[in-house]
Amino acid sequence: MKSLLLPVALLVASAVTMPANATTSEQSLKKAEQLREIALRSHLGYDIVESLTVEVGPRLAGTPADARAVAWAQAKFSELGFDKIYKQPVTVRHWERGNASAEILTPFPQPLAITALGDSVATPKGGITGELAFFDSVAELEAADPKTVKGKIVYIDARMHQHREGKEYSLAVAGRSIGSSVASEKGAIALMIRSVGTDKSRMPHTGNMRYKDGVKKIPAGAISTSDAMMLMAMKKRGKAITVNMDLGTTAYTPKTSYNVIGEITGSTLPDEYILIGAHLDSWDEGTGALDDGAGVGITMAAAKLIKEFKPKRTIRVVLFANEEGGLVGAKEYRDANASELHKIKLAGESDFGARSIWRFDSQVNPENLGLMAQIAKVLKPLSINHGNNKAGGGPDVSVLPAKGVPVFSLRQDGTDYFDYHHTANDTLDKINPEELRQNVAAWAVVAYITAQSDSKLLPLEVK
Amino acid sequence: MKSLLLPVALLVASAVTMPANATTSEQSLKKAEQLREIALRSHLGYDIVESLTVEVGPRLAGTPADARAVAWAQAKFSELGFDKIYKQPVTVRHWERGNASAEILTPFPQPLAITALGDSVATPKGGITGELAFFDSVAELEAADPKTVKGKIVYIDARMHQHREGKEYSLAVAGRSIGSSVASEKGAIALMIRSVGTDKSRMPHTGNMRYKDGVKKIPAGAISTSDAMMLMAMKKRGKAITVNMDLGTTAYTPKTSYNVIGEITGSTLPDEYILIGAHLDSWDEGTGALDDGAGVGITMAAAKLIKEFKPKRTIRVVLFANEEGGLVGAKEYRDANASELHKIKLAGESDFGARSIWRFDSQVNPENLGLMAQIAKVLKPLSINHGNNKAGGGPDVSVLPAKGVPVFSLRQDGTDYFDYHHTANDTLDKINPEELRQNVAAWAVVAYITAQSDSKLLPLEVK
Repeated sequence: MKSLLLPVALLVASAVTMPANATTSEQSLKKAEQLREIALRSHLGYDIVESLTVEVGPRLAGTPADARAVAWAQAKFSELGFDKIYKQPVTVRHWERGNASAEILTPFPQPLAITALGDSVATPKGGITGELAFFDSVAELEAADPKTVKGKIVYIDARMHQHREGKEYSLAVAGRSIGSSVASEKGAIALMIRSVGTDKSRMPHTGNMRYKDGVKKIPAGAISTSDAMMLMAMKKRGKAITVNMDLGTTAYTPKTSYNVIGEITGSTLPDEYILIGAHLDSWDEGTGALDDGAGVGITMAAAKLIKEFKPKRTIRVVLFANEEGGLVGAKEYRDANASELHKIKLAGESDFGARSIWRFDSQVNPENLGLMAQIAKVLKPLSINHGNNKAGGGPDVSVLPAKGVPVFSLRQDGTDYFDYHHTANDTLDKINPEELRQNVAAWAVVAYITAQSDSKLLPLEVK
Repeated sequence: MKSLLLPVALLVASAVTMPANATTSEQSLKKAEQLREIALRSHLGYDIVESLTVEVGPRLAGTPADARAVAWAQAKFSELGFDKIYKQPVTVRHWERGNASAEILTPFPQPLAITALGDSVATPKGGITGELAFFDSVAELEAADPKTVKGKIVYIDARMHQHREGKEYSLAVAGRSIGSSVASEKGAIALMIRSVGTDKSRMPHTGNMRYKDGVKKIPAGAISTSDAMMLMAMKKRGKAITVNMDLGTTAYTPKTSYNVIGEITGSTLPDEYILIGAHLDSWDEGTGALDDGAGVGITMAAAKLIKEFKPKRTIRVVLFANEEGGLVGAKEYRDANASELHKIKLAGESDFGARSIWRFDSQVNPENLGLMAQIAKVLKPLSINHGNNKAGGGPDVSVLPAKGVPVFSLRQDGTDYFDYHHTANDTLDKINPEELRQNVAAWAVVAYITAQSDSKLLPLEVK
């Protein structure tokens, strides 16, 4: 039987183990269970997302709507009775979309639903016209003879399929993020991509891109997945396809936006922080209900509900500025608070929509894994499994572990997240209030138990 | 047992009975079964819809794209080997959408996804601005004191829910069809409606409307259901809501379009016609895959497949012009062919999307109910039930029973039809090829058996 015992032993070793440093009191754990049940019946999270999407709506960083969102966040923290409310300036780019249209001119004229990628330059007035050069991926484009691309509009048709963890996103997104630079270096006049999305609909997906230094900036847009399917069927007809794309984007001077922060002050360890957060900015086409109004609602509501339980440590809710521009507010937060980061004992961001959470991961000092196991036990009735100790913490929070800050992730079901991601269809009606409540309950449990723990909360070892 | 027998007898009497005039040969019925199985394996219907949506795309009556659709239809009939191909001129309005945008100005500025209703006049350049006056229905608007409406933009929030037969459409559509006239008569400056649709998405639904004679024409648009939900949540905040709506529509001089007709000539009764059809025009925002590219594909494919079986009567496929403008091509067809309508022995139109058919209804002379029962038997393996003798025949074909022409309906599952109806999202990816094949099989069966029947096919009694 030895041969059978060995794999079992390995399995146990690779799962989460329970070190000695696990001393959250039974009383605190009982309270955490009460908190969980209260959160499961609370409509507060949903009310906050509704308020943000109805009273502010789209809030692209640097725009007047972004400034309204900052004012909204301060007012909402105040209305909810947070103990300390402040904001931290962040310099953000200010880019606006303007008009966006495209049409196939030959061989079979018809319009295309298109959106400009974030930070794309505009086309000349009246648009830019060219023949399409087709590629399945950036890799294929990179390998292409520049002769096949020069003077043309590069089209990249990278597909993405639904997946609980959104696994194909990082692959498919390459066309969006660096496609225009690669195309430009080969002499293309513009970039058009199949939307990085898993829907079958006429909703193009925007998103961030960057021009490489020194590259000629060419306009870049994404057509909807429905249009992409039509276009590929047209390509099969064997004739050259010419399109006109007309993007009326404008780059303004950078603006000042803000990370907005609200705190529930700890009763006995006020100078130790549990940081939970989300990003306040959104793309401009939808109302940013899923990305990231949901995260705003979940974390604000969780902290507010914890307040009634008088946590020992301070709960800090950070609503980051300009995540969509490339974690701009998060980097500023990290740098401006460099000398204080050791006070953050655990951090996590909610930024993957509003579906139910199915797994709890952490990235903490091994000495604190016992505490994570205690948390996991209270999360279990929410149908949340305990995962591993390799959490990223969420996009904005991902900049913190390198500075020694422990993080956690409450992983949501992202199966349909990329149906709506960065589209006009990211609106409140996509949120199921019941699933949102499960999220609020989970966030409240993690933050509260950590805030209450008698364990010493240790930093990560920074290599 | 007599008391039990009576209800059974009644049941039989109220169901479809089998009169003597039911003499389609066993051989023809066997052939119909073969045809059904061939159709179930044929990709032709889907290929035709793909061809129409890829090679023509949107085809609003009167536009250059409509003319391309007419040319496409003639070429497709020819490619498929139809025996006789011709077209019949129809005068159609020519209206184009142009730009469409709207935004809430106060109390919480944000954009709205809007589309102009068909035939709406344009707003002044820069749009029209006003406070919203809210109504749940046209009926409520009709009952309103004009003082509450005068100088305002009327907003009608009529809801519609998914239903297999699309039952709420006829109620909800009143706001779209006559709302602008009712609002105008009470002094409103514009009409905005919640889209007549069952989706939760950011896709506004356009559709036909008419101004009453003599009424001041005010601009009319529909916002998406997602926007409607947001707007109603904003209304609850208790402040007056002002919006700007900017519709850049243009009415041109009427144009000539065409009903396009293809025939498979009957071998022994060529002067008796089984008419099956669909409408060729579509709204301009989607590619008209469901409305009514599917019907075009289903009926052309069914006729083509029947051709190999050499039908006794002629199969006539009519692709009607400008259904969306109010059955314009159908009325022209009826009037221009008035003296020949008695030769049409049965007629039906496919125009309710591309989902599976679940019921077969007819409206035929009672003498021919036996034939309908024979057809129903061959449809049964397609999971199609036999319904009643009160069929409408489909929108365009509905003008024919009053002239004595018998009709049939193959009723499709319309549960999600109004998710996409008249939106940019009416595209090929919404069609399930397998369900489309079931449709083709059913249409082929009905048309073929009727074409083969030895029964005398009698007209309806016209009251």
